[in-house]
Amino acid sequence: MIIHHSSVNLQNCNYLPTSSCLLHTLYIDPPFYRIEADTFGELKVPVDKYYGAQTVRSTMNFKIGGPSERMPIQVIKAFGILKRAAAEVNKDYGLDPRLADAIVQAADEVAAGKLDDHFPLVVWQTGSGTQSNMNVNEVISNRAIEILGGKLGSKDPVHPNDHVNKSQSSNDTFPTAMHIAAAKEVHEVLLPGLQHLHDALHAKAVEFKDIIKIGRTHTQDAVPLSLGQEFGGYVQQVKYSIERVKTAMPRIYELAAGGTAVGTGLNTRIGFAEKVAATVASLTGLPFVTAPNKFEALAAHDALVELSGALNTVAVSMMKIANDIRFLGSGPRSGLGELCLPENEPGSSIMPGKVNPTQCEAMTMVAAQVMGNNVAVTIGGSNGHFELNVFKPMMIKNVLNSARLLGDASVSFTDNCVVGIEANIDRINKLMNESLMLVTALNPHIGYDKAAKIAKTAHKEGGNLKETAIKLGYLTAEEFDAWVKPHEMLGPK
Amino acid sequence: MIIHHSSVNLQNCNYLPTSSCLLHTLYIDPPFYRIEADTFGELKVPVDKYYGAQTVRSTMNFKIGGPSERMPIQVIKAFGILKRAAAEVNKDYGLDPRLADAIVQAADEVAAGKLDDHFPLVVWQTGSGTQSNMNVNEVISNRAIEILGGKLGSKDPVHPNDHVNKSQSSNDTFPTAMHIAAAKEVHEVLLPGLQHLHDALHAKAVEFKDIIKIGRTHTQDAVPLSLGQEFGGYVQQVKYSIERVKTAMPRIYELAAGGTAVGTGLNTRIGFAEKVAATVASLTGLPFVTAPNKFEALAAHDALVELSGALNTVAVSMMKIANDIRFLGSGPRSGLGELCLPENEPGSSIMPGKVNPTQCEAMTMVAAQVMGNNVAVTIGGSNGHFELNVFKPMMIKNVLNSARLLGDASVSFTDNCVVGIEANIDRINKLMNESLMLVTALNPHIGYDKAAKIAKTAHKEGGNLKETAIKLGYLTAEEFDAWVKPHEMLGPK
Amino acid sequence: MIIHHSSVNLQNCNYLPTSSCLLHTLYIDPPFYRIEADTFGELKVPVDKYYGAQTVRSTMNFKIGGPSERMPIQVIKAFGILKRAAAEVNKDYGLDPRLADAIVQAADEVAAGKLDDHFPLVVWQTGSGTQSNMNVNEVISNRAIEILGGKLGSKDPVHPNDHVNKSQSSNDTFPTAMHIAAAKEVHEVLLPGLQHLHDALHAKAVEFKDIIKIGRTHTQDAVPLSLGQEFGGYVQQVKYSIERVKTAMPRIYELAAGGTAVGTGLNTRIGFAEKVAATVASLTGLPFVTAPNKFEALAAHDALVELSGALNTVAVSMMKIANDIRFLGSGPRSGLGELCLPENEPGSSIMPGKVNPTQCEAMTMVAAQVMGNNVAVTIGGSNGHFELNVFKPMMIKNVLNSARLLGDASVSFTDNCVVGIEANIDRINKLMNESLMLVTALNPHIGYDKAAKIAKTAHKEGGNLKETAIKLGYLTAEEFDAWVKPHEMLGPK
Amino acid sequence: MIIHHSSVNLQNCNYLPTSSCLLHTLYIDPPFYRIEADTFGELKVPVDKYYGAQTVRSTMNFKIGGPSERMPIQVIKAFGILKRAAAEVNKDYGLDPRLADAIVQAADEVAAGKLDDHFPLVVWQTGSGTQSNMNVNEVISNRAIEILGGKLGSKDPVHPNDHVNKSQSSNDTFPTAMHIAAAKEVHEVLLPGLQHLHDALHAKAVEFKDIIKIGRTHTQDAVPLSLGQEFGGYVQQVKYSIERVKTAMPRIYELAAGGTAVGTGLNTRIGFAEKVAATVASLTGLPFVTAPNKFEALAAHDALVELSGALNTVAVSMMKIANDIRFLGSGPRSGLGELCLPENEPGSSIMPGKVNPTQCEAMTMVAAQVMGNNVAVTIGGSNGHFELNVFKPMMIKNVLNSARLLGDASVSFTDNCVVGIEANIDRINKLMNESLMLVTALNPHIGYDKAAKIAKTAHKEGGNLKETAIKLGYLTAEEFDAWVKPHEMLGPK
Repeated sequence: MIIHHSSVNLQNCNYLPTSSCLLHTLYIDPPFYRIEADTFGELKVPVDKYYGAQTVRSTMNFKIGGPSERMPIQVIKAFGILKRAAAEVNKDYGLDPRLADAIVQAADEVAAGKLDDHFPLVVWQTGSGTQSNMNVNEVISNRAIEILGGKLGSKDPVHPNDHVNKSQSSNDTFPTAMHIAAAKEVHEVLLPGLQHLHDALHAKAVEFKDIIKIGRTHTQDAVPLSLGQEFGGYVQQVKYSIERVKTAMPRIYELAAGGTAVGTGLNTRIGFAEKVAATVASLTGLPFVTAPNKFEALAAHDALVELSGALNTVAVSMMKIANDIRFLGSGPRSGLGELCLPENEPGSSIMPGKVNPTQCEAMTMVAAQVMGNNVAVTIGGSNGHFELNVFKPMMIKNVLNSARLLGDASVSFTDNCVVGIEANIDRINKLMNESLMLVTALNPHIGYDKAAKIAKTAHKEGGNLKETAIKLGYLTAEEFDAWVKPHEMLGPK
Repeated sequence: MIIHHSSVNLQNCNYLPTSSCLLHTLYIDPPFYRIEADTFGELKVPVDKYYGAQTVRSTMNFKIGGPSERMPIQVIKAFGILKRAAAEVNKDYGLDPRLADAIVQAADEVAAGKLDDHFPLVVWQTGSGTQSNMNVNEVISNRAIEILGGKLGSKDPVHPNDHVNKSQSSNDTFPTAMHIAAAKEVHEVLLPGLQHLHDALHAKAVEFKDIIKIGRTHTQDAVPLSLGQEFGGYVQQVKYSIERVKTAMPRIYELAAGGTAVGTGLNTRIGFAEKVAATVASLTGLPFVTAPNKFEALAAHDALVELSGALNTVAVSMMKIANDIRFLGSGPRSGLGELCLPENEPGSSIMPGKVNPTQCEAMTMVAAQVMGNNVAVTIGGSNGHFELNVFKPMMIKNVLNSARLLGDASVSFTDNCVVGIEANIDRINKLMNESLMLVTALNPHIGYDKAAKIAKTAHKEGGNLKETAIKLGYLTAEEFDAWVKPHEMLGPK
Repeated sequence: MIIHHSSVNLQNCNYLPTSSCLLHTLYIDPPFYRIEADTFGELKVPVDKYYGAQTVRSTMNFKIGGPSERMPIQVIKAFGILKRAAAEVNKDYGLDPRLADAIVQAADEVAAGKLDDHFPLVVWQTGSGTQSNMNVNEVISNRAIEILGGKLGSKDPVHPNDHVNKSQSSNDTFPTAMHIAAAKEVHEVLLPGLQHLHDALHAKAVEFKDIIKIGRTHTQDAVPLSLGQEFGGYVQQVKYSIERVKTAMPRIYELAAGGTAVGTGLNTRIGFAEKVAATVASLTGLPFVTAPNKFEALAAHDALVELSGALNTVAVSMMKIANDIRFLGSGPRSGLGELCLPENEPGSSIMPGKVNPTQCEAMTMVAAQVMGNNVAVTIGGSNGHFELNVFKPMMIKNVLNSARLLGDASVSFTDNCVVGIEANIDRINKLMNESLMLVTALNPHIGYDKAAKIAKTAHKEGGNLKETAIKLGYLTAEEFDAWVKPHEMLGPK
Repeated sequence: MIIHHSSVNLQNCNYLPTSSCLLHTLYIDPPFYRIEADTFGELKVPVDKYYGAQTVRSTMNFKIGGPSERMPIQVIKAFGILKRAAAEVNKDYGLDPRLADAIVQAADEVAAGKLDDHFPLVVWQTGSGTQSNMNVNEVISNRAIEILGGKLGSKDPVHPNDHVNKSQSSNDTFPTAMHIAAAKEVHEVLLPGLQHLHDALHAKAVEFKDIIKIGRTHTQDAVPLSLGQEFGGYVQQVKYSIERVKTAMPRIYELAAGGTAVGTGLNTRIGFAEKVAATVASLTGLPFVTAPNKFEALAAHDALVELSGALNTVAVSMMKIANDIRFLGSGPRSGLGELCLPENEPGSSIMPGKVNPTQCEAMTMVAAQVMGNNVAVTIGGSNGHFELNVFKPMMIKNVLNSARLLGDASVSFTDNCVVGIEANIDRINKLMNESLMLVTALNPHIGYDKAAKIAKTAHKEGGNLKETAIKLGYLTAEEFDAWVKPHEMLGPK
């Protein structure tokens, strides 16, 4: 059988699963599907897919949003890790080693992303994520059956529920996969991205440490600071961004596995929860532990709200930094013009020097999205009822989206903007020298009243301080130079 | 009896009601209170207050937030209007005219703000606002009793429930008061404020219509426009702000009165709902009508969410306008400096010309608050259950706060900033003349390549276009002046 | 040349464009790419793609978020409509008809979704959407060149800027495409979905009009209403949802086209803006007009914030309705159990009757997402500067996502839940008859005190009203039945 | 002079300052005011107020929002602490001890709340809080002058700027006061409130540990758990709430004092910053330190965004807990009815047992408000520019409001609801015994098929499991009782 996948236009196909939506509805002839059944009856399943009836049924019942709304692949991969860990522990507790090993192999393939095409479900399904858990169970079951030489869809010798889902429930596996996915995304994408940005900003802060510039408060001219100090503020924000994210992780490392249906652990064995967490920790290299209270771990996802809150704070920092940089780099003639930003793409064919701060724009758009995502996560987190929160897929989608966007944008912003930033020293010096604020340095020498007179006169006439001071006869050029030293205004004495 | 109100320190008193909290707990001796009872038992009520036992009980049960968290006085005044209207209609349906007239008089006093000190309850009470409805019933009842020569607290001859609340329930009166209060705040504070701002911006747009300036996109230099055009964009935003708010009003004009407990109108008479709405319309001069579906009107407050959404959009407009103005007015030396903002307070004692854009700052803070308020309203609105939404006090508090802040800030921003804005024409012209973007005007005359060469050279060498063009030998000063005419770049041809 | 698209694993490929990311980086040998240049230099472009250098450059500079973060295809299709309209109008103004016609044909293919694979860019690019505008220009240019027999990448005879983008700028085309896309999504997905839901709820309200049930306020038992009245409240909410969305549309119908770079319309002809809007209106059947103020239309996207606010209000309504239905359908034994929801998928293999309200869950997750999206749109909308808002791609992504999710979820919720809802009449009657609240009907006959005594006794002893009333000797069974008639408690008298 | 403060109607007076608004505008005759001047000219200041010209000017320029919008008194008190600490350190560095001591005494009075009436400014002022800093400087200066026998308004011998504000700037003092105020509110109101709630919930969890009840997932019947386990989940949420708040505190403990105008510390002495932080720590008993990077501390308020995010997460937990409790307590006849909530106020005069869950309603309204506040804080935090964030007053207002509301509501909810919750054991047992879910316990004994048959039959016929099982002849009553033991379903084996 040949299926021309290349003929499937993802974006014209309204609903997932991509192939089944197209093939199933229109073209599936007997050679192209197999019949599987769940307790509701028989369904046609594409022959080249490992998923089964419950997955297909979900695609029929939840035609919401299209391909971009798929369950994040990170959740699927996390399920692969969890299912492997559970199989190993179940083997310890008596599961037939042959079955367990096949499950482990199949689960590894899921975790490695080798079976991504077999997970067509969207986020907008049951709020417990049950259908995605079953999707995983079906895929692993069928792949394990294949490994063991069995027949796809036969549930023999590896049953999706009895073996792959053994000692588990959607209610504890989905939260577990959420936490694994979130922790991995944070460690693999977000934190490295932030560290990358931190290091680049820090390098710039060092590079710029001797460049003295006008400060701005209320967007208005103020006393000077060094450009290195200004960038040092950004460095601190990113440093704290990293700390904030790390601070939220201990509760993410707590896994619900072992809680089963309502948190009691019914149908599990004593020790199962702890062993699964330890195995997941071993597989991922992250310090996962079993959640101390499984009722909380199923009924609430406060840990994700907390992490989202940290991401929201990171977004706030990013918005500030990116905004500053685009304004400091505004110009080339009619802006502040203190920074020269790298030119990455054609700005305007006719106007050299019009460097649009596109990386800043991408970053600030990401920041706004993360802030919105945080509200969605907050609302979902607050609306759990009794023993189960049923906003799980939506919550994890948003948390992963925020982490990924912030991590990716940090790298893009760093590599395509920060590392290439140059100080426009002529402009910085010009603004510095024209500043009226430096007059404060004259107070101890000529008194407040004369100093104010200089400043007022300069402002009114448009002159600079030095010229004006000399013209007013209050001091000499030499005295001015001796007394007005911006570099001595950069710290306490 | 003498109570030294001036000795009551509002801000030291943790919980409301102000006087009772202080007096009741510490100092109330027999002469200073009367005993009233509700079905839960007897309570001490300050003798100088019209409220009764249910109000006092609420102050005991809801010690949340302190004086600044009081039920907005606008809601109380709206209740005054509603209670008067209900009394008039009840009189038509047979309520003893003597009682009805006394209720009308007392309700008028509430509506006029004469009895504000008698409404101590906080927002954070029952989510139906029942306790504030009872507070109103108790105050009107006692005041009416007083008018009729009776004894405070006797419920005779005017009973708070049987007479003042006749044909009503908290479930329909509170939403009615919410809509009346919101509509009045919109008409009395918000819309006049926005119109005031609109008119001032429009006057500036006219005043500035011939001032040609550099445009900025991506915060970078771009082709020119007139300062009048730039302000014209703000005018359009405020014009639409007004339209947006008006667009949300039709559903605010729908009153729940007549729905009683669950929306059926049990215990009311046919026609009561319509007559009350008509009376409220007559009393307020606003086009109130009875809600076509009382179930929706009690169980959901989508109309307030809708209005809050309009206010959120207004806030977005205000943030943009105020941000632009502070950046265009930044300086005096190191900013964009195209606008001179009025100086309203000492900026810095030493630095003349440092005019902090404080009105812009107040406005943008208001905008941020309104955006936050909108989320609170959204969450409250979404969490109603069955026949009643119980986030009513929180919702109306936020809507009124947003409307008031936007209205007040619009007036403050207008009077203390917009009307005093002056164009810094020298600076505008300087930036305009230095701009490299005007080179586009040379394309038809000397060709793209030479034009680009001029721009690139000028950018590199820091020269202006005219000098550079002449230096490169591409044209004469006369030609440049003839061909580069910014005022011809302001529209289609 | 053969490219095995089926071997491309979308989800393993971190960054877009799908094929180029894979092929370009790793495998592209000379036969598989062509060389194109922009002003920054030469780049390899996959030979089977119509896009050009600027698109490729964007994929290199903005590796943010992966495939699910692509520019919404609705924006691309809207660009197709706009580019066709512009070509037609440009033809009127003198563009070579041969070129214009080829552009029209190519643009039609874009609008029809035939070239979707050629738009690989993500949302997180420049905030003006310039790169997506250029992506469209490049694709249409190359496709038109192909139609006219030219060589891909030659820009001859159809130049992406000079011809496809003629009289346009990213700054006015992107907002125009945003409005076209939003209006179409609202009309094609959202409004039909809401109407579908409205009609189904309305049919249920009619079906249930004679079923009298206990009301619930504060989640507590209250006086009765009919199930039809309860559903009637939902019908009203959806009816108003439709009105709210429609109310926001007039300002969405205003198109920025003709404003070019900063809103002045520089480089366009008088009448161009009006003709383009009229052509777009004709092509879409929607009442588009040219924006009365182009400065506002480029610098602010308040119209999208306004629409998002309407969608937010719709989400609030959906949350209420879906929440009610899941609680009313809770059980089968230990919940409220008044509704029987259709069973769409296996709930629990062992427990018949455990019907998880999965459609309600999908809907409430969608509602939470829309509320979050609204905050992202709000923040983006508020942060425009000067002549251009640079949060455009993020804003439209969220608005389209909200509209699509609400529309799709409405259909799914209707077809898979609402139409199949049945009243559990036995349960409804049982709760009704056991209710103590009906005692209110006895007040006029036996007086308040005796009525209260009955209720209190029944509550204390767990009996029902009728038995208790008879046992207390206050009335006979016949009298009870004659006086206590819930169906007479459903309206005013 | 006598001012009849009791005649001032706070709520009728539109704008602050309360007394000056009334007196100043209308009634101030010479005896009632003194003339003070700032650099803008002379102003009338009420004779009984310590504030001066800059404060009065702010009341004239910022008529936004009315009395409820005052700068939170906690910020004022925090300023008292800071000003005392600064005076002590300034004394070490050479400030005249007589002046320093008078400042200390006056500052202590501010910190103690003795001068609250002298702080009339609203939040909606300059975004740096400069005017409130000056209000504090003026009040302390005048009070210190009074202590030293001088003349109010003379600025002699204690000058508001030169002495009270010595080594300080609004730009570093306001953020310092923000952090002090936030830390104190967290420690004095929020954490004790949460601990109080935690302890009460924990006591209930212990009390209810042996009550076995039906679990609910998806709001539907599920396998059993103990009521103690269910409450144990809430306990865990509150425990983590406390941890989350504490986790955010380290960065709140960092004080900006010593950064002065832009973060450089210009005009301070080396060591000043550290000594001030140490003194504040000593005065408050909280571990304040000087901020390691003053640029970040002035330009960004990420620490407040972070804390607000923690409060947002707490709100999410509170919403879940309060929602659960009101649903579990719903009834008395037609709800879930598993909990009996304390009756705190008249619910309905006619219907005993209708206990409205008003404390839950107050709590959930508070939660919604906190979530909205968090968005306001987020937006404010993200919009700082260059060396100064100018959303300071708005940000701290919202953080303090959230902390206070959550703390107060926790106490109210605990004392008026949680401690009085009783389990309705009859109802719990009834639902438990009627549950079909217990059938799972029969699987090992009679096999899956027969067990399912029992459940399906019972569901169809409305019988209970035991009766149905016996009727079907699958087992005896004794066997049923021996095999179906809910208390053995509460954990792993």
